[in-house]
Amino acid sequence: MTTHTTDPSRTGSRRPRYAYLGPEGTFTESALLQVTGGEDTESFPCSDVVTALEMVRAGTADYAVVPIENSVEGGVNATLDTLSTGEPLLIVREMLVPVAFVLCALPGTRLEDVRQISTHPHAWAQCRGWIGRNLDGVTHVPATSTASAAALLASGEPQSFDAALCSELSAREYGLEVLASGVADNPNAVTRFVLVATPGHLPEPTGADKTTLMAHLPDNEAGALLRMLEQFATRGVNLSRIESRPIGDSLGRYSFSIDAEGHLADERVQAALVGLHRVCPIVRFMGSYPRADGVRPRLLPGTTDADFRAARDWVTSLLGSGSGSE
Amino acid sequence: MTTHTTDPSRTGSRRPRYAYLGPEGTFTESALLQVTGGEDTESFPCSDVVTALEMVRAGTADYAVVPIENSVEGGVNATLDTLSTGEPLLIVREMLVPVAFVLCALPGTRLEDVRQISTHPHAWAQCRGWIGRNLDGVTHVPATSTASAAALLASGEPQSFDAALCSELSAREYGLEVLASGVADNPNAVTRFVLVATPGHLPEPTGADKTTLMAHLPDNEAGALLRMLEQFATRGVNLSRIESRPIGDSLGRYSFSIDAEGHLADERVQAALVGLHRVCPIVRFMGSYPRADGVRPRLLPGTTDADFRAARDWVTSLLGSGSGSE
Amino acid sequence: MTTHTTDPSRTGSRRPRYAYLGPEGTFTESALLQVTGGEDTESFPCSDVVTALEMVRAGTADYAVVPIENSVEGGVNATLDTLSTGEPLLIVREMLVPVAFVLCALPGTRLEDVRQISTHPHAWAQCRGWIGRNLDGVTHVPATSTASAAALLASGEPQSFDAALCSELSAREYGLEVLASGVADNPNAVTRFVLVATPGHLPEPTGADKTTLMAHLPDNEAGALLRMLEQFATRGVNLSRIESRPIGDSLGRYSFSIDAEGHLADERVQAALVGLHRVCPIVRFMGSYPRADGVRPRLLPGTTDADFRAARDWVTSLLGSGSGSE
Amino acid sequence: MTTHTTDPSRTGSRRPRYAYLGPEGTFTESALLQVTGGEDTESFPCSDVVTALEMVRAGTADYAVVPIENSVEGGVNATLDTLSTGEPLLIVREMLVPVAFVLCALPGTRLEDVRQISTHPHAWAQCRGWIGRNLDGVTHVPATSTASAAALLASGEPQSFDAALCSELSAREYGLEVLASGVADNPNAVTRFVLVATPGHLPEPTGADKTTLMAHLPDNEAGALLRMLEQFATRGVNLSRIESRPIGDSLGRYSFSIDAEGHLADERVQAALVGLHRVCPIVRFMGSYPRADGVRPRLLPGTTDADFRAARDWVTSLLGSGSGSE
Repeated sequence: MTTHTTDPSRTGSRRPRYAYLGPEGTFTESALLQVTGGEDTESFPCSDVVTALEMVRAGTADYAVVPIENSVEGGVNATLDTLSTGEPLLIVREMLVPVAFVLCALPGTRLEDVRQISTHPHAWAQCRGWIGRNLDGVTHVPATSTASAAALLASGEPQSFDAALCSELSAREYGLEVLASGVADNPNAVTRFVLVATPGHLPEPTGADKTTLMAHLPDNEAGALLRMLEQFATRGVNLSRIESRPIGDSLGRYSFSIDAEGHLADERVQAALVGLHRVCPIVRFMGSYPRADGVRPRLLPGTTDADFRAARDWVTSLLGSGSGSE
Repeated sequence: MTTHTTDPSRTGSRRPRYAYLGPEGTFTESALLQVTGGEDTESFPCSDVVTALEMVRAGTADYAVVPIENSVEGGVNATLDTLSTGEPLLIVREMLVPVAFVLCALPGTRLEDVRQISTHPHAWAQCRGWIGRNLDGVTHVPATSTASAAALLASGEPQSFDAALCSELSAREYGLEVLASGVADNPNAVTRFVLVATPGHLPEPTGADKTTLMAHLPDNEAGALLRMLEQFATRGVNLSRIESRPIGDSLGRYSFSIDAEGHLADERVQAALVGLHRVCPIVRFMGSYPRADGVRPRLLPGTTDADFRAARDWVTSLLGSGSGSE
Repeated sequence: MTTHTTDPSRTGSRRPRYAYLGPEGTFTESALLQVTGGEDTESFPCSDVVTALEMVRAGTADYAVVPIENSVEGGVNATLDTLSTGEPLLIVREMLVPVAFVLCALPGTRLEDVRQISTHPHAWAQCRGWIGRNLDGVTHVPATSTASAAALLASGEPQSFDAALCSELSAREYGLEVLASGVADNPNAVTRFVLVATPGHLPEPTGADKTTLMAHLPDNEAGALLRMLEQFATRGVNLSRIESRPIGDSLGRYSFSIDAEGHLADERVQAALVGLHRVCPIVRFMGSYPRADGVRPRLLPGTTDADFRAARDWVTSLLGSGSGSE
Repeated sequence: MTTHTTDPSRTGSRRPRYAYLGPEGTFTESALLQVTGGEDTESFPCSDVVTALEMVRAGTADYAVVPIENSVEGGVNATLDTLSTGEPLLIVREMLVPVAFVLCALPGTRLEDVRQISTHPHAWAQCRGWIGRNLDGVTHVPATSTASAAALLASGEPQSFDAALCSELSAREYGLEVLASGVADNPNAVTRFVLVATPGHLPEPTGADKTTLMAHLPDNEAGALLRMLEQFATRGVNLSRIESRPIGDSLGRYSFSIDAEGHLADERVQAALVGLHRVCPIVRFMGSYPRADGVRPRLLPGTTDADFRAARDWVTSLLGSGSGSE
C-alpha cells in the first residue's frame, strides 16, 4: 500500500503522493492512515514539518499531513508559521488523533532503572505529571520526534538515555519492550493534524466547516485586537481557536492564527473576511474544510446566507429606486 | 413668484409645487426660500407637518419643507414619525435656519404690561430663560405655530394673551409692534429643515453627505443598542444624530432615528445598511443628501470605497482559486 | 381628604403636601391617588410640570407627581429637563396609569357634528389613528391639558372647538356628554408618573429597582455613545430606557436620559456610576426606587454584590501580600 | 563574585541566591548580570526553567532569572505555565537581552564543511533564514540550550553535529572557533527575561510599570475574549502583550497570558482586576514591576487615580445624601 521513494520527483506514478512528519510510526502516520485508508498511495516521511510542506509547494508531493495543534502544548509553531508565509497552501481536511504514549526500552530494562527518557518535547510536556509521580528524578533528553527516540534506542549504539516515550506503533516497529502504556497526563488529550494541498482544491461546504486564517493586528495597541474580533462578532462568526504569534520584528507585535466556524462559501464568513481585509495590514486565508467533530455552528438571528442576500438586495433596491424599507 | 392655490390638484401648472409648514412668515418659509430662491413656484402653507408630507404622498405637491430637528428641543416628533411610517418619502436636501424671535404685540402695548405670551411650544422652550429674566411671572399660551400666534393677535378679536413670540417676518407681515428682538436663550440656536420628495430622486453624492435612517432595536435589551451601533462602528461610519423614539406599543420599546455621515453610494454606508438590515427587525432608509454645513467625514483607514472593493475582490479571488493573501 | 390651599406656604399643617400637574381630573391625579390612597394630604394642582417640581425645590410642597414617559410620545421633555438641571431632586417612586380617553362635548352635540377637537398634544398623538378612522377631516386645537380642554368647553364661552378628548373623570366633573369612550390607538398605552422629593429620601432597595440617570456624552462622536454603554455592559447593568436629549448649545450634542435596572445600593450599579463619572463630563443621579411592575433583573454571572466584594477583597489581598490567585 | 554550590540549602550565607536557566554562558546569564552587577551573590545554573522556579518556591534560592518571551518565538511556555500554576511567585523585574548568535565549531572546521548544527530550538528558529541563505541543506540537531550544544561539541566525544549556534560568551568559554558571528534573522531581536521572587516583594510603582496576569476565559466561545478585553478597555488599561495558551483539558479551551500597562497600585489596574476576577473563572496576578524600556503609558481622559477617587467619592456621597451631581 505504501511505497517509500527517495526521490519522489522521479516517479511517474499517478498514485497520490503524501509527505508527512516522519519517521514512520509516529502519531502523524496514524493521521495519514485516516486519510488514505486502504488506498494505494506513495508516502514520504520527512524530518520536519517545514520539509513536508515545502514538498507540496515544490510539487514533489500532492499533499502533506502535519500536526497543527495539540490540547496541551497549543499550536504547532512550525506548521502555523510555514502556512502563514511563503507560497499559499490550503488546508483541505483535519484529523484528530488521541494522544497516548508508551514508555519503552531495550528488552531487559526495568522501570526502576530508567534515569533518562528521550522523546519529542511536546510529548514530554504531555507526560510531565505522570513522570513526576512514577519516575521521580528522571530527566528529559529531547528528540526530534517520538519515533526517532525509539529508533535511536533500538539502533544498538550507546545513548545518553535508557527509555523512550513514543507511540505503541513505534515500540512494536522497533522491537522495544513496553514498560508502561497509556502514559498521558490528560486522558482526553488529542492532537489535531491537517491535510495540506496547493490552492485550487477548496472542499465543498458541509454545514459543519472550519476556516483557518492568519491576520496581523492593524497596529500596536490592545484596542486593535478588540476591533479585529468585532469584525467576526458583527457577522455572527464564532471562533473555535485563536492563538497569538509574535510577528518577529520586535517585541509586542502579534499576528493571530484563527479558526473560525463556517466555510468560505458562507456569506457571514465572506463578510467577516472583507472586514478583516480592510482593518488588518495582512490577512491570509488558509482553507475551509469539514470539522473532524462534525459539530454545526449555532447561527444567530440575521446571519444566514438568506439574511445576507435579502439585506444586499434591499440595499441594491435602494440604489435603484432611491427608497426602501425593512 | 408664489401662488397660493386652495386645490393644488386642479392646477395644470408645470411649476414645482411646495407644501410647507405654514402659515406664511414662519421659519419654515425662510427654509423654503433657501430652496426656491427666485424661482417661479407654487407653494402651499399647511397647518401641520403631517399634512405637508401627505400632500407629497398624494401627489398634490412635488416637495414638502418641514422642520426635523432643533438645537434646543431635539427632533421634531411629527416629522420623524411621519417619515418613518406609511408610504416611503425621501429627504433630498437639508436647510439650516438660525433661531431668533421677536416679542411683538398690538401697537401701544408696553413690555411691562405683557402677562401672557402666545407662541409654539418649541419657541417657548427656546426662550424660557430670557422670559424668566425679563418678564418674570409671564405665562405661556400654546399656539399651533409662531406665526399663528401673531395672526391671532393681529385679528382684532379678544385673545387670552397680549403678546406673541414669532419671527421678525411674521411681526412685520401682521403689522405688530416689536417689543424686543433677538429673543433666544442660545444665540447659536438653529433649526434644521428638510426638503422631502417621493422616491426616485436620490441626490448625487458630494463627498459631504448625510444619510437618514430609522431602525427598530432587535429586542428589548440594552445590549441590542450596542450591537446596532457596532454595525456602524465596524464599517467606520460615524453618526451625527441619534434619537430614540418609543415604538408605541409598550413602554421600553424604542426605535432610533439616525443621521449617519456619508451617502448611500458610499460602500461603507451600504455595508452598514446591510448589517442593520440583518440585525434590526425594521429599518427604513429616508434619504442621502448633501450636508448643509459641507463638512466632509474623516475616514478611518480601511473604509474608503477602494478599500471595500479591494477586500471584496480578494474574497472573490479566494472563491475562484481557493487561495489568496492580503 | 384633599385640601386646595392657594398659598401652601401659609399652611401650618403637618399633612404631606403634593404638587401635581393639574388641573384636577387629569391622569396625573390618578397617579397621585395611587400614592396617597385614603391618606389625609394637601395637594396643589399646577399649570405645568416645571411649577410642580419647583414647589418641591422651594419647600412649598413635600412631593411632586409628574408624568415622565408615555408609551406613545416618549419622554416628557419638561420633566426630564427640569430634573436634569438646577437643584437636585430625587425620584422616589414610579406609578403606571393606563391611557384611555373619552371624547366628550356639550350635551346635545352629535358625533357627526364634531369638526374640531381640543386636547393636549400628547393625547391627540395617542388617538390620531382612531380620529382618522372615525372622524375624518376633524382637526386639532391644542390645549395645555386634557382637563383644561374639557373645562373650557364647559365654561359656556364660545370656543374654536366643539369637543374635548380627556379622561372620563374630567368629563364627569365638567358635566360633558360622552360621545365615545375607550378612545386610544393602542389599548396597552400607559403613562409613567414619578413621585419626586428632595434628596435625603433614598428608598430602600427591594430587589426589583430602577435607577434614573442623566449623562452628557463625553464628546461629539458616535463612538462616545458606545463607550458610555460599555460602562453599563461591563458591569452587567441592563437599561430599561434610554432617550437622547439635545444639550441645547448646538446641533449634534446630546445628553442621554437613562433608566438602569438596579438600585444605588447594588454594587454593580455603583461600579457603573463610577465608570460613568469618569468618562462623561456631566452625570446626574436622579433616584433609585422600586419598579412599578416588580420585575427583578436577571443577573449575569459575576455581577452579584458578593462577586464584587470577593473581587475587591482579592485585589486588597494582592496589595497586602503582593500575591494572590483566583 | 559568583559561587557555585551543589547544595544551596546547606549554605549559611546571607548573600542573595539566584537560580537561573543555565548552563553558564547563555543569554540568561547576561540577564542575571544585569541584575547582580558587581554584587556578591550565589548563583545556581539550572537545567531548565521549571527547576529554577521551583528552587524559589522551595526556598533554596531567593530569586530566579528565566526567559519569558522572545521576539521571534513568542512566549516561553515553560515559564508562563510554571508561573501560572502551583505556589504563587512574583515577577519583580524584567531585563532585555539582544539576541545575537555565533556559529562555532572545533578548531579546524571550515564553514563549508558544516552539515548539522546543534542549538536550542528557539535559537534555530531565530536563525533559520540566515542558515538557509548561507548554509543551504544544513539540518538542525536540537539541544537543551545554546550553551549545552557548545559544551557537547567541546567535550571531544563524537557528536551527530559539527557546529553549534550559541552566544559569543559560550564559544569563548568552551574554546570553540567562531565561523560566523552576528547570526540572527532579525537584527532587532531581543529576549525578555524576568526576575522572580516569592510574594511579599511587590516593587514600588515608578510610573512606567507593567503588570503580568493570567486569566482563563469564562467560557468556550469567542465572545468571551471580547468581554475579557473590555474589562481592560473600559478602565483605559492598554495591553502590551497577550498570548493564548491551551488550558490543556480539551482542544479549544484557552487561558490568556497578559502584560498590562500600569502597576497594581494604579486605580485603573485595580479596577480592571476587579472586573477580571468577576468574569473569569481563574485569574492570577504574577507581578507589577518597572518596564525595562521605561515607557510611560498615555492615559486616556478619566483614567487617572484622581479620576477614580473623585468618581468613588461621588458615589459615596450619593449613598450618604441620596443625591449628587457630576
